[in-house]
Amino acid sequence: MTAAVPLEVGLVPDNLFAAVTAASAEERLTELLSRPGLRIEKIVSTGQASPVGFWYDQPQAEWVVVLRGQARLRFEDEAQARVLAPGDYVDIAPHRRHRVDWTATDEPTVWLAVHYRG
Amino acid sequence: MTAAVPLEVGLVPDNLFAAVTAASAEERLTELLSRPGLRIEKIVSTGQASPVGFWYDQPQAEWVVVLRGQARLRFEDEAQARVLAPGDYVDIAPHRRHRVDWTATDEPTVWLAVHYRG
Repeated sequence: MTAAVPLEVGLVPDNLFAAVTAASAEERLTELLSRPGLRIEKIVSTGQASPVGFWYDQPQAEWVVVLRGQARLRFEDEAQARVLAPGDYVDIAPHRRHRVDWTATDEPTVWLAVHYRG
Repeated sequence: MTAAVPLEVGLVPDNLFAAVTAASAEERLTELLSRPGLRIEKIVSTGQASPVGFWYDQPQAEWVVVLRGQARLRFEDEAQARVLAPGDYVDIAPHRRHRVDWTATDEPTVWLAVHYRG
């Protein structure tokens, strides 16, 4: 009997889409990187939206991209929501009031958000 | 005859995957955001790799994710390259020497890179 040849196991990288399951009652937020003045996070939404009448009003700027799913992002200073599909990105200035009007219910919507000093 | 009802045209957002064509002789880099100490860029590779013997040695840190395609990222301080598939991300410390050993030739590899003060 010969000894098994040891497999060279490569480093398994972290993956954005790991643990993105089909549905969840709660929106899930994962911090991927945190540095002074910079935070990268993943958000997974499945049908969640901002509460009625709620607006995000953030001291930091946010560059955000939808990687999976679909969402409607509404700015208070715009009449109409923006429909975001995979690859669509938006840069949100500090204190520009916005809300998530809707996210897809039939698949998870994966956002990647880069919060930075604006 | 009735006048056509005007369509409400929503704002068309910028898209990461726009203009990602099947193949290009050159690697293409698009700056998506540039702020003091922060730069977000998209890189599209189709078979390109770092020149033989070349190592990136960057003063800034880089958080990078592969969104489409496939790549092999090699660090000088690691024996083996890391295989990166869509969603895989890596945080590269300043001056940690690395190179791209290989990218897929049959489809574009789309990277999103966040360069920041490390």
